[in-house]
Amino acid sequence: MPQARLDEDLLNRPGSRLEIATPALVLDLDALEANIAAMAAWATSQGVALRPHAKTHKCAAIGRLQMAAGALGLCCAKLSEAEALAAAGLERFLLTAPVVGARRIARLLKLAARAGEVMVVVDDAENLRALGAAADAAGCDLGVLIDVDIGQERTGVIDAEAALVLAGIIAGAPRLTFKGLQGYAGQVQHIAGYAERRRASHDSLAKLAAVRDRLAAAGQPSPLVTGGGTGSHALDPAAGVLTELQVGSYIVSDVEYDAVDLTGDGRRPFRSALFVYARVVSACHAGFVTIDAGSKSLAMDGPAPVVAFGAAQGSTYSCVGDEFGRLTLPPGGKGPRPGDLVGLVVPHCDPTINAFDWYHCVRGDKLVDIWPIEARGCAA
Amino acid sequence: MPQARLDEDLLNRPGSRLEIATPALVLDLDALEANIAAMAAWATSQGVALRPHAKTHKCAAIGRLQMAAGALGLCCAKLSEAEALAAAGLERFLLTAPVVGARRIARLLKLAARAGEVMVVVDDAENLRALGAAADAAGCDLGVLIDVDIGQERTGVIDAEAALVLAGIIAGAPRLTFKGLQGYAGQVQHIAGYAERRRASHDSLAKLAAVRDRLAAAGQPSPLVTGGGTGSHALDPAAGVLTELQVGSYIVSDVEYDAVDLTGDGRRPFRSALFVYARVVSACHAGFVTIDAGSKSLAMDGPAPVVAFGAAQGSTYSCVGDEFGRLTLPPGGKGPRPGDLVGLVVPHCDPTINAFDWYHCVRGDKLVDIWPIEARGCAA
Repeated sequence: MPQARLDEDLLNRPGSRLEIATPALVLDLDALEANIAAMAAWATSQGVALRPHAKTHKCAAIGRLQMAAGALGLCCAKLSEAEALAAAGLERFLLTAPVVGARRIARLLKLAARAGEVMVVVDDAENLRALGAAADAAGCDLGVLIDVDIGQERTGVIDAEAALVLAGIIAGAPRLTFKGLQGYAGQVQHIAGYAERRRASHDSLAKLAAVRDRLAAAGQPSPLVTGGGTGSHALDPAAGVLTELQVGSYIVSDVEYDAVDLTGDGRRPFRSALFVYARVVSACHAGFVTIDAGSKSLAMDGPAPVVAFGAAQGSTYSCVGDEFGRLTLPPGGKGPRPGDLVGLVVPHCDPTINAFDWYHCVRGDKLVDIWPIEARGCAA
Repeated sequence: MPQARLDEDLLNRPGSRLEIATPALVLDLDALEANIAAMAAWATSQGVALRPHAKTHKCAAIGRLQMAAGALGLCCAKLSEAEALAAAGLERFLLTAPVVGARRIARLLKLAARAGEVMVVVDDAENLRALGAAADAAGCDLGVLIDVDIGQERTGVIDAEAALVLAGIIAGAPRLTFKGLQGYAGQVQHIAGYAERRRASHDSLAKLAAVRDRLAAAGQPSPLVTGGGTGSHALDPAAGVLTELQVGSYIVSDVEYDAVDLTGDGRRPFRSALFVYARVVSACHAGFVTIDAGSKSLAMDGPAPVVAFGAAQGSTYSCVGDEFGRLTLPPGGKGPRPGDLVGLVVPHCDPTINAFDWYHCVRGDKLVDIWPIEARGCAA
């Protein structure tokens, strides 16, 4: 049964936050709005644009809030993500990974025909020629950015020579427009120390600047230079390379980013806006209880979730199965009872969000809305 | 866009298996059917019944195949799982974890009213009294099993005294019927060595037998004694304690179970029936390529997926993000190109399945069906 329907009767009732069926992905709208406003203000103050990454939230309602706060468009990691958000009425997408293969390229062009500006990155000549031929055949224009590997070693050309080859192909393809460069320093985002992260970020961006300058010298200036993330957002503008930031996790933060000194002064610019609510299902032991959230509800690729409120304050989480977690109680802690609620700060937000179909949106003590996560599971 | 629709045009076309949009969860129906038949034959030969765990597959079509092969019913870890499968027409559910709290108990009784026999486990007196009172108020009968902790330390009473207290409460509740005991030795299932696993399994089952015998001596015999899993299925019947097995992963197997000597002779009784298909999206480096499956498409709580076929034979997978993986190529291996397909044996089947909305069902080289995973994400 869709969980939204389980909780529809709770909407706008005082105290209803505590009645939500668990496990649930609970979004604090006040905190979300504050985070969106804070990042928008930062970007404005620095003279950079925002093209937030929808791979984090996968949700049309959140995308709309980001667009309303001035975003140029939205980034998507996967084509089906953009398709789902376009079906929900959004437009202006940048595909931040190559779109490869005839069937996928056909889908991309179909999207471009309906969703306003659609741009895609490339790092391979053969893929680029296929894009150009398909755009010709479809009579559809496509914006293209060259993806540059600036140290993450995931996608992207590894030197300026390869970028020049691709720029030449783009220049010769009537339906393709060269939009600029992408360089995403994924390896930098979670370096905890500010100074070390700044050094790594600026080293990466220097590589991107070198490619940009080589292309410009060859007569191919880059209108857009896109990259960056929540981890480096406070550092990137000073390097003067990126024209826009692809920030994602800032909207909700998570345990992983809480460990990163984002601003160099220990201040946390973004509030914890996203929680997994869970309940105790078994309390037969003195030192721990079992809750109803395991590896199917919490990302297992990073740190453990942190108990934020409710029963079992001061306890620590460990996964004890696909559906269950253990909260090890602090010495002398009052033992929670079956049914007691616990709120966990999400460990790594992106894959945790991808486990749920709905955001349960709260303000204060009320459940005020239930938002579909339209692009959940859209990985293709 | 729902991935099923992306691939509808491929159904029953020769060679269509290789065209599926990736990442996709691909189910080999011949292997699935062989696994279901093999487990059914084993259970029959041993005189035990099967109540397979639907938490693994979350799919009505697979549940129907298991029922057709003689299963008594299906186990569900979560109530919403059973609700989703009941909505798809299945019935006869055992909830293998306590169902706690007034709102959840109300849902359980609603399910019991529509889905044939519904049974639930208990390990707490207060929860049990609430179940009894709600069943009275609803005028609805409910079968109850006492959950016994036999070493996993997750749910279940920890001694026979606690079980006797619960049995007394059940006996006094007019709408509750005592059905027997559950003891799940989750800690045993993945012990790789056969002899060690047999010792651990039989030790656990001895605890369960002791509780069963204490209850019987007190005039409360256990018609059902349910437990076991794929890892211990070949060992459990000989212990003579379980009347039925709650096997789950056997239907598809996975990398995790491939490392377990299930039968003591190195033979693999179950075929690999489940794969994640992925494609190369970037090949800018000599020693590795990047594919389109990361932590949102492959469970990260166990071993790495194994390259089974396609491009990049002999390469090893590592996760490089929520959406991407790296295949490190063997020395001298021919470098795959963007667009090339790769088939990965699923690492840990349960949470990997829970990342997808559809099984892409293949026979030979054809995509022959696309099955919804009705209970995907049903964690509440």
